[in-house]
Amino acid sequence: MSIQELYGQVLEMYREKTILIQVAGLVGWDYETMMPKNAVEQRGGMMAFLSKLEHQMSTDPKLGELLDNIESSDENGGLSDIEKRNILLVRRTYDKSTKIPVELVIERSKLSATAIDVWKKAKDKNDWKLFEPYLEKMVVLMKKIAHHLDAEKDPYNVLLDFFEPGMDMAQYDVMFDELRDGTIELINKINKSSVEVNRDLISKKVSIPIQEKLMDELIKVIGYDMDGGRLDVAAHPFTGGPGYDDVRITTRYDEYDFASSFFSVAHEGGHGIYEQFVSPDYRYQPIGEASSMGMHESQSRFFENILCRSPGFWKFFFPKFKESTSGIYDDLDFDEFLKAINIVRSSKIRVEADEVTYNLHIILRYEIERDLINDRIKVSELPQVWNKKMKEYLGIDIEADSEGVLQDIHWCDGAFGYFPTYTLGNIYGAQFLNILVKEMPDWEEKVMKGDIKSIRLWLNEKVHHEGNLYDPIDLVEKITGEKPNVKYLMEYLNKKYSSLYNL
Amino acid sequence: MSIQELYGQVLEMYREKTILIQVAGLVGWDYETMMPKNAVEQRGGMMAFLSKLEHQMSTDPKLGELLDNIESSDENGGLSDIEKRNILLVRRTYDKSTKIPVELVIERSKLSATAIDVWKKAKDKNDWKLFEPYLEKMVVLMKKIAHHLDAEKDPYNVLLDFFEPGMDMAQYDVMFDELRDGTIELINKINKSSVEVNRDLISKKVSIPIQEKLMDELIKVIGYDMDGGRLDVAAHPFTGGPGYDDVRITTRYDEYDFASSFFSVAHEGGHGIYEQFVSPDYRYQPIGEASSMGMHESQSRFFENILCRSPGFWKFFFPKFKESTSGIYDDLDFDEFLKAINIVRSSKIRVEADEVTYNLHIILRYEIERDLINDRIKVSELPQVWNKKMKEYLGIDIEADSEGVLQDIHWCDGAFGYFPTYTLGNIYGAQFLNILVKEMPDWEEKVMKGDIKSIRLWLNEKVHHEGNLYDPIDLVEKITGEKPNVKYLMEYLNKKYSSLYNL
Repeated sequence: MSIQELYGQVLEMYREKTILIQVAGLVGWDYETMMPKNAVEQRGGMMAFLSKLEHQMSTDPKLGELLDNIESSDENGGLSDIEKRNILLVRRTYDKSTKIPVELVIERSKLSATAIDVWKKAKDKNDWKLFEPYLEKMVVLMKKIAHHLDAEKDPYNVLLDFFEPGMDMAQYDVMFDELRDGTIELINKINKSSVEVNRDLISKKVSIPIQEKLMDELIKVIGYDMDGGRLDVAAHPFTGGPGYDDVRITTRYDEYDFASSFFSVAHEGGHGIYEQFVSPDYRYQPIGEASSMGMHESQSRFFENILCRSPGFWKFFFPKFKESTSGIYDDLDFDEFLKAINIVRSSKIRVEADEVTYNLHIILRYEIERDLINDRIKVSELPQVWNKKMKEYLGIDIEADSEGVLQDIHWCDGAFGYFPTYTLGNIYGAQFLNILVKEMPDWEEKVMKGDIKSIRLWLNEKVHHEGNLYDPIDLVEKITGEKPNVKYLMEYLNKKYSSLYNL
Repeated sequence: MSIQELYGQVLEMYREKTILIQVAGLVGWDYETMMPKNAVEQRGGMMAFLSKLEHQMSTDPKLGELLDNIESSDENGGLSDIEKRNILLVRRTYDKSTKIPVELVIERSKLSATAIDVWKKAKDKNDWKLFEPYLEKMVVLMKKIAHHLDAEKDPYNVLLDFFEPGMDMAQYDVMFDELRDGTIELINKINKSSVEVNRDLISKKVSIPIQEKLMDELIKVIGYDMDGGRLDVAAHPFTGGPGYDDVRITTRYDEYDFASSFFSVAHEGGHGIYEQFVSPDYRYQPIGEASSMGMHESQSRFFENILCRSPGFWKFFFPKFKESTSGIYDDLDFDEFLKAINIVRSSKIRVEADEVTYNLHIILRYEIERDLINDRIKVSELPQVWNKKMKEYLGIDIEADSEGVLQDIHWCDGAFGYFPTYTLGNIYGAQFLNILVKEMPDWEEKVMKGDIKSIRLWLNEKVHHEGNLYDPIDLVEKITGEKPNVKYLMEYLNKKYSSLYNL
């Protein structure tokens, strides 16, 4: 077979797997949004069946042979750069799927199901000791899995690379140390500021139909395409569905907190826009996916924080907001409002944290994961380490583990290395902003006039269209001229919050 | 392998196929109800992929071997009746899937796609000649397919049996002749009746939110379980979704015709209730499906016509209806209302026909199909034959084929033999009613008091729970003590409409 025939067969196998993943994406979306309550068990069977099929396709020995043949072929050089990239990405996924012995895959899936169950109970009862043995087993298991993926590398580095290709402890340590110290300094200043912020100003009742109309306007403004998507309600907002021409976002409504829904739609809208604007030419190829989790998070947070919590955005949107909430917020002062939606308050719970303190929640988790996987701390020491760091970084006393080390589900699944990608998104985003300012110096004036489209088009061109043509670090470098660098995030936060808090 | 091991393997293969069909059911439901408009093409790819998988599973040679081994095994007698029934049903589907050469399957699927396309244009332009050659090809193809399914039998009998196991022309001819003549006689009497019916009385505007609340009440009353289903909007109402604990119904709303939506919910609710109440013990086995299309239709029409258009039902529901339409219909007279929802009017379009004239639309199609497949008429003669029968049976002049022979999509797909199952549903339903009257003589008093549940439970026990334990004809015989018999439908219609029209 010629190299082009081999390549064609690999792409055809990828295409079928993509369609299967689209189906699973729809089934999963429906589970969270539409499914009647009696169907939980039955749906579990449907999802397990689709997972099994996906695993079969991902580990098909025929795919391995095709890849081997392509990689060892003399004609290999005849492939275009894009074709080579596609093969590289298929190889990566194939290795990830096949290097882990199937017994470990099954063990992880079983342990994870039990651990989630126990974690829920432990969290409810505030009983760390209940969860501890399961987390211990999961740490051991994930180290084994990391060893199978790459026996040469430090296991935590293997896991970090798994979630964000190209990242490792060396890079995170440098960035997170700087971000941690800089953020603590900024928070100390904010705490000393005489500026008073009243979050209650924005907790008047706004009925759900009115909030829904507000979301429709927001969606139009940011440019999420409803002809290729939907907005529905889910208990935990997410972006999902089949993808490509059918990318669905979700939110939840609280009558007394319209802002929660508003910024969750801006956030998921950012994820959705990324998926919607990957170049259609790349569809059904590995390069047709988003570049990474960190890159995805950079886009959701760009829309949520950098754009939709900015003074410029509200210069334009505030009158619309007042109008569409039909009188409820007529008396609200612009500056008070802006401070309320950007309030900085140390808190116990990560998912409730603001733009500034959020990164400390992540850094804390990163440091713990790193030391845990590298045997520098024991699972049994986690509550103690957690609480110490919460005090040190955020000045917060944790009295109950349910509000501390037990708050997140991620570790139940063994997803060590996932948390840091959230903050990485903030880092990438601020770097992109730094370039946007240079390439479009009037971007804030544009936003003030309601022209969010220009910024969206800029992100489309720089980030979204590119799909997975580059690893995230390379894409950051291509766009900004440098590797991930925390400096710009610190500058952005200092500038924004110095102004809001008169520092 | 022991007979039980062989049997276990067949059931396991059936279970996986069922799950795949559940997935496809959800994907199809979403297509009709939720999918954003840009996703049409992509969704086509998803559905084609699932069809391909289903075809692979249905024609898996391993399944054929297992069936052969079971059927030829000495231990065969060791299987229980239920186990034997399951094997028989798997065998039937396997034969249907494998006896048709794959080239013909592909040819049908291609021809059908083109024919639907051409049919839409032909209907729009009122141009029969455009569609004619495609229908001709489809008739030839379906005769070939029938020949492959069973070369010994008359091809139309093969197709009739395909859609309703056990049915053939001999049975349909007897029943349909009697039904046709009886119905024409009844219509003639109605036409001479001095009773005036004013359909406009029920065409006041009822907003969609109010109609939605009305549907919620209807659903509760008939006993469709919303914890194992949903009601959504679709252009063409249908019952679908994954099935079992997740059976979804749909409707559409017309502000000036609440009755259209009301009776479509009653109809789909009947389909939904059937699916929801098949014995849970039979799940993931062939006996866990509904018995047949005709049996399904008997349930939808039982709920729509026999129950929800009956005087007794409205004795109970009329005050609720007036209340929930908040004053709009306060002046409406009960008898006038009852006549309006049961108006008999000959019309050109099948899907708009009433309970009495509907069967003539079906009989006309049955006679044409029968004579077409048996070469007694030519495709080119269809408009002429159609129009002649419309005049003869319904007294209607067809001026445009778009309102005549071109009105239905069914033949584009080669679904000859499908139409008669609609009327078969009416026949079965009236037979069940005849037994209900005997076993529950106070059933009408129950309905008047709002106790629809007793009737639903009776149908659950007699029909729904049984799943596919029996072929439809045998189930009718088990419940009523006789084979399908049109007499009871004619009696039901004569009695009901004599009363409404003072005949």
